[in-house]
Amino acid sequence: MVEEKKPDIGITVKKSENFSEWYTQAILKSGFADYAPVKGCIVFRESSYAIWEKIQQIVDKKIKEKGHRNVYFPMFIPESLLRKEAEHFEGFVPECAWVTVGGDKQLAERLAIRPTSETIIYQMYAKWIRSWRDLPIKLNQWCNIVRWETKATKPFLRTREFLWQEGHTAHATKEEADKEVMEILEIYRDLMENYLAIPVLVGKKSENEKFPGALYTTTLEAIMPDGKALQMGTSHNLGQNFSKVFDIKFIGKDEKEHYVWQTSWGISTRLIGALVMVHGDDHGVIVPPKIAPIQAVVIPIFYKEVEREKILGKAREIHEKLCKEGISTVLDDRTEYTPGWKFHDWELKGVPLRVEIGPKDVEKSQVTFARRDTFERIAVKEEEAVKAAKKLLDEIQSNLYNRARKFLEEHITTVKTYEEFKKVLREKGGFIRACWCLSSECEEKIKEETGATIRILPFEKEKPFSNCIYCGKEAKEVVYFARAY
Amino acid sequence: MVEEKKPDIGITVKKSENFSEWYTQAILKSGFADYAPVKGCIVFRESSYAIWEKIQQIVDKKIKEKGHRNVYFPMFIPESLLRKEAEHFEGFVPECAWVTVGGDKQLAERLAIRPTSETIIYQMYAKWIRSWRDLPIKLNQWCNIVRWETKATKPFLRTREFLWQEGHTAHATKEEADKEVMEILEIYRDLMENYLAIPVLVGKKSENEKFPGALYTTTLEAIMPDGKALQMGTSHNLGQNFSKVFDIKFIGKDEKEHYVWQTSWGISTRLIGALVMVHGDDHGVIVPPKIAPIQAVVIPIFYKEVEREKILGKAREIHEKLCKEGISTVLDDRTEYTPGWKFHDWELKGVPLRVEIGPKDVEKSQVTFARRDTFERIAVKEEEAVKAAKKLLDEIQSNLYNRARKFLEEHITTVKTYEEFKKVLREKGGFIRACWCLSSECEEKIKEETGATIRILPFEKEKPFSNCIYCGKEAKEVVYFARAY
Repeated sequence: MVEEKKPDIGITVKKSENFSEWYTQAILKSGFADYAPVKGCIVFRESSYAIWEKIQQIVDKKIKEKGHRNVYFPMFIPESLLRKEAEHFEGFVPECAWVTVGGDKQLAERLAIRPTSETIIYQMYAKWIRSWRDLPIKLNQWCNIVRWETKATKPFLRTREFLWQEGHTAHATKEEADKEVMEILEIYRDLMENYLAIPVLVGKKSENEKFPGALYTTTLEAIMPDGKALQMGTSHNLGQNFSKVFDIKFIGKDEKEHYVWQTSWGISTRLIGALVMVHGDDHGVIVPPKIAPIQAVVIPIFYKEVEREKILGKAREIHEKLCKEGISTVLDDRTEYTPGWKFHDWELKGVPLRVEIGPKDVEKSQVTFARRDTFERIAVKEEEAVKAAKKLLDEIQSNLYNRARKFLEEHITTVKTYEEFKKVLREKGGFIRACWCLSSECEEKIKEETGATIRILPFEKEKPFSNCIYCGKEAKEVVYFARAY
Repeated sequence: MVEEKKPDIGITVKKSENFSEWYTQAILKSGFADYAPVKGCIVFRESSYAIWEKIQQIVDKKIKEKGHRNVYFPMFIPESLLRKEAEHFEGFVPECAWVTVGGDKQLAERLAIRPTSETIIYQMYAKWIRSWRDLPIKLNQWCNIVRWETKATKPFLRTREFLWQEGHTAHATKEEADKEVMEILEIYRDLMENYLAIPVLVGKKSENEKFPGALYTTTLEAIMPDGKALQMGTSHNLGQNFSKVFDIKFIGKDEKEHYVWQTSWGISTRLIGALVMVHGDDHGVIVPPKIAPIQAVVIPIFYKEVEREKILGKAREIHEKLCKEGISTVLDDRTEYTPGWKFHDWELKGVPLRVEIGPKDVEKSQVTFARRDTFERIAVKEEEAVKAAKKLLDEIQSNLYNRARKFLEEHITTVKTYEEFKKVLREKGGFIRACWCLSSECEEKIKEETGATIRILPFEKEKPFSNCIYCGKEAKEVVYFARAY
């Protein structure tokens, strides 16, 4: 007889005391991810991958409604192709993984594994686009991406391989491209705030921080519990930078040749990491109901064999009712685990609502709900179970969002001096609202000295309320700084 | 003023006369695929990718109903890991692409890009599986795969990168693994016959042809119009080969340690190539209605401006009605193309049903349908349009299947001598039903001399009707040979 290895126990550190270790344990013990046998990579296990599938469904539906179509381009990009746009190449070459051998042959030209697909896609656009009739082109792909990170990797937030969607469009005019950029940004904001329950600041990136090769970059930025910002998604207007390099021209209605205007945009599996960080607690992950692959789990509780059939029957009935009403529900009727073990396990995984059916519940014709966010337990008459479950899921969704919104608001600090700036960074973190003269030099010095970067330039310009935080000269804009992941 | 490049014209060769060139043109001119700027790779364009999405939906739903869950494992497999199972390594190493450089650093160990994921997945199974409570594990991933083909590549059928799904399960007993293999095979058969309208032969592979590392391989094989067989999907019982190498053990209810029994199975974007080959005609692709992303296209036809609003209004009305009834319909109201050009374009792309609304149709309160498979045109009273459309789509589906079934049946030839065998291969192709003594030597000689391989050993054994086709000794089984893609 062999002794069984002990099952994992819960998270052994507090989120508030050792955030980094808490995150690692939350990810691993919930079964969201595991470290893979290749450095800097993770396995996206079923609990996290199912969230990615929900994100895909939501975004896919919305972009298709707006006329985008999915495609798939090769992940291999010949080095010469990647080199075509100089700024773009410089930006990505330090983090490319290179295939140099195929079978037993050295390749004549090495191939980058896509760090992003502008170059290979736009090479084809040059071939496909001939006249105004071919525009706009609005394509998207869901795929894997490789960036050979040299910084410390972190599950979901920074790994050498991750999953994303990348949209690539070509338009006849700058105005159309501008509009596309903003429409996508709004789809992303809606996903983040209304599904993931993570409030974001939106705006433009500075020239230093924009995408290599873009005219301008728009971004959505969230705040994590340790006070660091996280870039949640970006939507770029590429202008005519790529179309001029790749010779993507069309004959307009004016019968003249023009270069197309382009956009690209993306969100990645990084969002799963954000979700864990923002909502999780000392018991594990908390998944907001609107993005939860499993919204409720029904757990029958019986201690004596005589209670078994009655309680199981009731549990099955409730399970069926909830499913029928569109609540994604699992019945955990496994006999090899105790109810206590199950409570603990589903809490780790973050299922937002637990439905308990015990002897007392059957006796009183009630069910007992337990909220994952507040641990509040609520007994409800059986006939009101569906209605109550829906209401509770809505409340959990709002509560998670409001909690995160409050945290964000409390972590935006306005400063007028560089001393204050450094003090806030040191003591509190979060976003720092400050005035800036628009010079890259000040931006770089601040980054060098404090590690903070400009996260966004808000779309609606505010009147500066002080001189430039760094050089003391006249400020041009009010911007948001933060240290970031 | 610049002259516009001329739009593509139709396919310039006949399918019956130059099948290979016809296929290339059908793929390119329908917008299904394009050659990518990297050798041996294609771009999956929107028309073909949408079919892949339909395949994903159908299969994903069915495997999830059977308790499988989706995940994502890294595509990088360290060489040492790939080497662990010797037979498996030997089978795949000739076609691996190798990453040897990350950023600007030579890697200490080179990484294969997954040609299949058994090794990396089972390394994790060894970590995750402890007791009978953890079984079965039933995971699946949709991902890209790389096989550095040295043979001539062919869009969809054989490219260096393609998309697939790979399922990987672990069970407590061989019986459970056997059952899993057959359940998946049935899901695949249903997809191929009832959605793709491609009849298949199912059975086992011979020892020579089985998956490297498997106990046995089951397969689904179709026949292409040029008489060559195409392997459409496989489902393997891996036995305990991998579990012994990767040390995947569980403690049973008997409190003893056991190795798990495993299966793996997959289908790929190759199916899109099969669909084009089997159903296409000289006008282009034909997509069976049940797998068609667009089932019907409504084309308004007017020559005078006065007719415009009336006809467009009617076209919109029909379009809406069909959509509402669950028929995936597109209204092609573009003004920059003529109706004739549109007919031609949608025929190339293979939309199964065309709905024409012209002046005469409006006048007579009718709509005119045109079937893509037979080109038959049918005028139907407007109020019966939805019912007629549904009926026609069903008929097209059956007709495509029956046509293909007939072709398959006509291309199974029973032979008793090796002379006949070679004659059939030379003159007709298709499957050859013949008797075999089970020796690998005969199998290899036949392959060497004729290029034909054993495609399947039927599940239901038949009594041999002759001696072994090659050696003339006593035959043990009736099997199906063919030349294959």
